[in-house]
Amino acid sequence: MSDYLMQDIQLRIPDILRYAAEQHGDLTMPSLDEEGSWNRDTYKTAQQRARRLAGAISSLGLAHQSRIASLALNTRRHMELYYGVTGAGHILHTINPRFSAEQIRFTVEQADDAVIFFDPAFSQQAEAIANACPSVRLFVALCPADHLPDLKLPGLTDYESFIAAAPADGPSALSERDGAFLCYTSGTTGNPKGVLYSHRSCMIHALAASATGNFGVGPGDVVLPCASMYHATAWALPMVAPMNGARIVLPGSKLDGETLLDLCANEGVTHAWGVPTIWKAVLDAALQSDRNLPDLRRIFIGGSAVPQQLKRDFEDHLNVEIVQIWGMTETSPLGVIATPSAALKREAKHTQDEILHAKQGRVPYGIELSIVDEGGKALPHDGATSGRLMVRGPWVVNQYFGHDAPVTDTHGWFDTGDVATVDPLGYMQITDRTKDIIKSGGEWISSIELENTAVEHPDITSAAAIGLPHPKWDERPLLVFSKRSGSAVSATEALTFLSSRLPKWWVPEDAIITNELPLTATGKVDKKRLRQIHADHYQKLEKQD
Amino acid sequence: MSDYLMQDIQLRIPDILRYAAEQHGDLTMPSLDEEGSWNRDTYKTAQQRARRLAGAISSLGLAHQSRIASLALNTRRHMELYYGVTGAGHILHTINPRFSAEQIRFTVEQADDAVIFFDPAFSQQAEAIANACPSVRLFVALCPADHLPDLKLPGLTDYESFIAAAPADGPSALSERDGAFLCYTSGTTGNPKGVLYSHRSCMIHALAASATGNFGVGPGDVVLPCASMYHATAWALPMVAPMNGARIVLPGSKLDGETLLDLCANEGVTHAWGVPTIWKAVLDAALQSDRNLPDLRRIFIGGSAVPQQLKRDFEDHLNVEIVQIWGMTETSPLGVIATPSAALKREAKHTQDEILHAKQGRVPYGIELSIVDEGGKALPHDGATSGRLMVRGPWVVNQYFGHDAPVTDTHGWFDTGDVATVDPLGYMQITDRTKDIIKSGGEWISSIELENTAVEHPDITSAAAIGLPHPKWDERPLLVFSKRSGSAVSATEALTFLSSRLPKWWVPEDAIITNELPLTATGKVDKKRLRQIHADHYQKLEKQD
Repeated sequence: MSDYLMQDIQLRIPDILRYAAEQHGDLTMPSLDEEGSWNRDTYKTAQQRARRLAGAISSLGLAHQSRIASLALNTRRHMELYYGVTGAGHILHTINPRFSAEQIRFTVEQADDAVIFFDPAFSQQAEAIANACPSVRLFVALCPADHLPDLKLPGLTDYESFIAAAPADGPSALSERDGAFLCYTSGTTGNPKGVLYSHRSCMIHALAASATGNFGVGPGDVVLPCASMYHATAWALPMVAPMNGARIVLPGSKLDGETLLDLCANEGVTHAWGVPTIWKAVLDAALQSDRNLPDLRRIFIGGSAVPQQLKRDFEDHLNVEIVQIWGMTETSPLGVIATPSAALKREAKHTQDEILHAKQGRVPYGIELSIVDEGGKALPHDGATSGRLMVRGPWVVNQYFGHDAPVTDTHGWFDTGDVATVDPLGYMQITDRTKDIIKSGGEWISSIELENTAVEHPDITSAAAIGLPHPKWDERPLLVFSKRSGSAVSATEALTFLSSRLPKWWVPEDAIITNELPLTATGKVDKKRLRQIHADHYQKLEKQD
Repeated sequence: MSDYLMQDIQLRIPDILRYAAEQHGDLTMPSLDEEGSWNRDTYKTAQQRARRLAGAISSLGLAHQSRIASLALNTRRHMELYYGVTGAGHILHTINPRFSAEQIRFTVEQADDAVIFFDPAFSQQAEAIANACPSVRLFVALCPADHLPDLKLPGLTDYESFIAAAPADGPSALSERDGAFLCYTSGTTGNPKGVLYSHRSCMIHALAASATGNFGVGPGDVVLPCASMYHATAWALPMVAPMNGARIVLPGSKLDGETLLDLCANEGVTHAWGVPTIWKAVLDAALQSDRNLPDLRRIFIGGSAVPQQLKRDFEDHLNVEIVQIWGMTETSPLGVIATPSAALKREAKHTQDEILHAKQGRVPYGIELSIVDEGGKALPHDGATSGRLMVRGPWVVNQYFGHDAPVTDTHGWFDTGDVATVDPLGYMQITDRTKDIIKSGGEWISSIELENTAVEHPDITSAAAIGLPHPKWDERPLLVFSKRSGSAVSATEALTFLSSRLPKWWVPEDAIITNELPLTATGKVDKKRLRQIHADHYQKLEKQD
């Protein structure tokens, strides 16, 4: 008698697309092709093509669990790679094309990628890889033969020719503990770090994300991921949509307001994902042309704070709900989601709005959160005490790819590098990055709250708060900001503005106006650079006194 | 470097209640206690009590994965057993109190239950077990000390005393492949067969059932399971509700129309489950008192066909949607669900209604369906061809408890014993049980369709169609029915009625009127008995000709 008496069926990613092909095979997934036209393949076609892709890959004779890379935007061919590469038993390394050439070289070498599938738009990156990484034996351009770019790359062929004659191949000998996706995250220092998602972690994540109180995507819905498929599987939407009988719209490189507005209207998009700037452009396009979006119900915004005005405008003018989500490459990415819990639904409307606006959200089933002090002691969930944010769960990283040791602590917690509060209702709010935190007289000051408050001033367009060495308080904040052109706002006025809204001891002693804040390669404010530039600012001030 | 780089966290049932206690711990789960009062414990309290129950059980020193039985209705203490027994690393055998004494004895012996937790209402069954199964060492009555029944049972104690002094215990050394629940199903012949659900199978099942297009239970919802917790975990609701931030209402023995109507109204029940008779009583109570149920959105009906009138009345008078679900003990139980798919939503309203009324439903992600002929060949999903219904999935049985060999075929399919069609949209309709099918001249006739058609006659109250040996056609159907008291409907009239609605060759040659159809121990029409009684009916008829 066997020990395990239920059917011992592995949780495997390709089974999602098989399910979709069988159960709702005629649903279309409109996709902007590299060659500029809109393709309307169905899930059934996508599955057939993904299986032929798996067959073509299998014929290369690579060892099980080889790494195969994509350099691609959100397109149907990228979606086929999600299912075809994993279906052939290999790992899809989704290269971030925004990484520097050196970062890309590092990731391709560490991953030991055997094949690179690339959008012709990323030909330059492909050439750089070919030059730097002689071990890549095959380059496949994600286009048909007549759009094949004229490049000198090992084995260069086009995707359509590559899969044309291949036999369909299935996920025969796949374990749920096998790797599925390899996704690198770049810090501000050091080399990018790779997170190797397993079939299992992706499947549990997709199932949990599908719950009614999380993404709430169901049959007949239409999802539009403007988050990138090279960023932590675009919030798992390429899995969540076919798993739930929803369509997926893949806009490729067309992320301008007009195009997305048309897409939402014409395809009946119900749920969309992305960063605020993208959705601000859609809002502007809608308001200018006096159009509305009757099908669109929710936009999930992750990756940066949601401007209050954007949220209000979407609700007031378009009757669209903006939902914050927070996650990171290391959390697959769903960490928390700002949908109302049962308890929050009992609060007054304005309390609900305040919490859902200000906070990143609450954990779905599967994720555990903890905030701890510097000694690792758990801190209360009182909404006021902030601590290092620790997470745990079946879709959270344990060890980076190619590293020797786990990155989790002895109790299995992963340190997110964020500093956060958790309120009694379970809503988490990020107050800082650990490395950006300002510690004044032994107490923490939230740089994020300083910055968010500063940009509420109508003439301040962007702001960074950094902690600088201070003779008396160890560290004090300095505000560096840029102002609206033509504005006469002064440093003193900015600080007075902060004083009216924040605890006195949080307000920086000084502020500096700059034309432009320095940015990192991934587009975030480079606070490390700012700290270097202004390192002795307070020490000099003290001497002047 | 470890092979598995994501956090290797097991899917364990007790983690659901921990999640609920931490994230929405103040949600109440109203429960009718054995002692007759309504308890309003919260998830937080339930988790604390379940952990103390686990501690009390651990102190018994049983081997890991021992079987512990419940003889109980839908109550908070039964829910605590779900989490406490599994949390202690043991298996909860949910005894069906409607089984015969002999069937119960068989299951307790085969399971080798060490402890029996029983509602005092089932004292008689508990005593029978004590007499027949000397290996049970401890009986715990699910009540406080002052309600302890006066019985002579080994180690008899009451539940509240049992857990009172125990230390909280957690799921420390639990694997997701460990057994969680043992649930027996009774056939019409042979001994009951036990299905051993694992933590893994229950968790994947609960996650999949939680999807928007399936149960669609979310934060703030209130679920009322009138399906029994001793029947395949009551459609997983004791897991689905706390996992999704929903409340659960546990009505114990009070399943009358008035009580359930009050419960639905007072607790704001949004989703309910049960058999048609229970919900007919609620409907009648609502109509008589002219009350409505503004919160109630959906009633899921499984276990028997939904009468068309009931569905219409709920929709027209109470604006409540009736959703068919189909499953069996062997499928955990969710097999199919009659919610609209994206494709069905595009059909005309009347087509949608027809399909959702007539068919049992479509598969959620995780379940695969196939219909096959007697040689095992797959048959087309054309909505007309019927075949043996086979299912496969991570929450489907592979091998019965205590049996030597898998019950699945070489491709892993489980034969449900049902005969069904599957239409091009993926909706499955059960046309027969394999053992009840009528095979006339080599062609199958659906006994269920004959019966459903017969009871559409206003004077026919119940009907059974059975296949009998026939000299010319091998087998021909006979209709046995009972009529409304005072009605003069004749056998000939009944057959004429069938002729007007069904293919000519389906219509039985004869019909017999009876006062009452014989029932099996589980309340289904005993067709085996009917076939015995009428075995030579057509042979006699032929001789008379």
